[in-house]
Amino acid sequence: MREVSIIGIGQTKVSEHWDVSLRHLAWEAVRAALNDAGVKHVDGLYVGNWLGGLLSGQEQLGALIADFVGMRGVEAVKVEAAGASGAAALRQAYTAVASGLMDIAVVVGVEKMTDRIGSPVQAALATGVDSDYEAAQGVTPAALAALLMRRYMYEYGLTLADFAPFSVNAHQNASTNPNAMYRNKITVEAYLKAPMIAEPVNLFDAAPAADGAAALVLCPAAIARDYSQKPVRIAASAIATDALALHDRPDPLFLTAANLSAGQAYEQAGIGPEDIDVFELHDAYTILAALTLEATGFAGRGEGTRLAADGSIGLKGRIPISTFGGLKARGDPGGATGIYQAVEVVLQLRGEAGPNQVEGARWGMAQNLGGLAATAVTHIFTRQ
Amino acid sequence: MREVSIIGIGQTKVSEHWDVSLRHLAWEAVRAALNDAGVKHVDGLYVGNWLGGLLSGQEQLGALIADFVGMRGVEAVKVEAAGASGAAALRQAYTAVASGLMDIAVVVGVEKMTDRIGSPVQAALATGVDSDYEAAQGVTPAALAALLMRRYMYEYGLTLADFAPFSVNAHQNASTNPNAMYRNKITVEAYLKAPMIAEPVNLFDAAPAADGAAALVLCPAAIARDYSQKPVRIAASAIATDALALHDRPDPLFLTAANLSAGQAYEQAGIGPEDIDVFELHDAYTILAALTLEATGFAGRGEGTRLAADGSIGLKGRIPISTFGGLKARGDPGGATGIYQAVEVVLQLRGEAGPNQVEGARWGMAQNLGGLAATAVTHIFTRQ
Repeated sequence: MREVSIIGIGQTKVSEHWDVSLRHLAWEAVRAALNDAGVKHVDGLYVGNWLGGLLSGQEQLGALIADFVGMRGVEAVKVEAAGASGAAALRQAYTAVASGLMDIAVVVGVEKMTDRIGSPVQAALATGVDSDYEAAQGVTPAALAALLMRRYMYEYGLTLADFAPFSVNAHQNASTNPNAMYRNKITVEAYLKAPMIAEPVNLFDAAPAADGAAALVLCPAAIARDYSQKPVRIAASAIATDALALHDRPDPLFLTAANLSAGQAYEQAGIGPEDIDVFELHDAYTILAALTLEATGFAGRGEGTRLAADGSIGLKGRIPISTFGGLKARGDPGGATGIYQAVEVVLQLRGEAGPNQVEGARWGMAQNLGGLAATAVTHIFTRQ
Repeated sequence: MREVSIIGIGQTKVSEHWDVSLRHLAWEAVRAALNDAGVKHVDGLYVGNWLGGLLSGQEQLGALIADFVGMRGVEAVKVEAAGASGAAALRQAYTAVASGLMDIAVVVGVEKMTDRIGSPVQAALATGVDSDYEAAQGVTPAALAALLMRRYMYEYGLTLADFAPFSVNAHQNASTNPNAMYRNKITVEAYLKAPMIAEPVNLFDAAPAADGAAALVLCPAAIARDYSQKPVRIAASAIATDALALHDRPDPLFLTAANLSAGQAYEQAGIGPEDIDVFELHDAYTILAALTLEATGFAGRGEGTRLAADGSIGLKGRIPISTFGGLKARGDPGGATGIYQAVEVVLQLRGEAGPNQVEGARWGMAQNLGGLAATAVTHIFTRQ
């Protein structure tokens, strides 16, 4: 297996893009990434997407987007793992380059969720949880997150206020990210007054559905400097899975897949959580942020919220998370989210994060979850 | 890249499986394949599926099926390329093993299309063509096939009867396949009297939507004999793409992606079409069978139907196709079809095809198409 580096990144603004189609969004991100890399010829395309069929009536996005971005003919497929589709597609692109199958691979995550409203979107999002045993009973993803959050609060004697700092931090960081969906800062007071979605999950605990696309260009590390002055090496890539249904998990408050894939990633990279300088985690709900910090070795059981309370997750803290706003405030365009996370880590490692910069960041991690962490994809990146 | 072999196969009957769920179908095929290989531990799972979200309300099939078949925790994703999803998933599994990433990989193609009828299914199938520029104008996949077929008949002075032998051959071969959906033989007279779906495409030109699952177990060729007495080596694996919309193709009667991916496959295997003993092609419509034979080097332009007329495509002919009934009569369970094709080629190469056996088959090819060949995935297999 060859070492693989990222030589180009691109992203659209995360927003409600009612004026353009799915393929157009993808094109915008891919074009930006190809320009960034200065690449002309591409060997293959991997598309991370979850809801193209359900919300845009369009599948076979591999061939469609390859054609639309000017790569007609190349190998191209869509990879799907609900909210983890983006990073799952990155994993396939990484493997293609690492194996020697391709020299230049492009991965694009793209999602368009806001063209429709209400029940079609809720039904589409419910395809990420267990259809027969959860969704069919009327339990939405937000309601499942609420079950986790309530149990967590009960087990560890916490209140709603303990989760506020995750949301405050995300909005603070999004305020200086021009691509973020919500650039408004929020206060603890505003968080505590937010309307409930599925008690105790409130509006500021949950990430917004959004439209967006982000892209990466990958090549063997050995030739990365031919294209980029600041290549970023993919030091680890790992996917692990868990039962979709919460009731099938022996210990629902421990994200087993997140733990497994992070563990594999640390081993591949030869480092541990203590070495990670920036961590883009999957804060689709504040409870997932807390549980992820615990599953990935940054906090003990029941101590995830403490890292938020004491400032550790801030840009100048011990383990900065959601440095461009995270899913919560940058926005969560489903199958594109995992690539946004990777793009943001690359910006940090290149030192190009502007007001969102984590000073001296050398190792960055991104973890993308599908459903309530039934799929967990972890990548570790470092300056080449 | 290591050489990769198939050490286990499994399939369910292709039918209307109203009594079982998507996950159950997948389980049946995976269990059969694991038993066939005698494998206990598996490193990863790739799921080929197209319509799980649209017709079963279930995505994230990687994690779901991994869990349901007893592999909770392993790396698992879904791969989608419309009707070519199955072979596209095989391609990812092949790459994972060839690269050294995994030693034992399972790929399962699964689709459940008959739980719903009428417009939801038509709308779901239309996600395989260009949503904005074809489907939104009311053009169904069958209508697009009709445009191709009419133009082909016009260009080469053919009549409907010229396509009959494809359908007669498929039904003949399905009659001795216990897993086929339609085991009735048909005559040219019956074909000519069949009701029109989208003129000139009639009922016997078009493959039926179906439910089914098929699975393969892959491992490095170097250890294949530890598991199987008759391992089958994957000699080539290639994906190519084309514009989804027919009107975007300079020459719609030439299946460019089918040609490109077959050409790459021949080169990888170091053989040519003259060496292929059995060819499972994507006869979703008889016109696709004719065009595929031309694009893959078995017939000149406009001569595809001649191979059907002169018996070349029969079990004892020069290039047997659809040897277990093909999409037409075995049935076309969408994202599972590509794995059915592979399973059938493996049966031929193992000499286990019973009354459907192509005597002395040494090289087999399978080509799986998405949409009207916007994605084409070609694999070549040989006895190890």
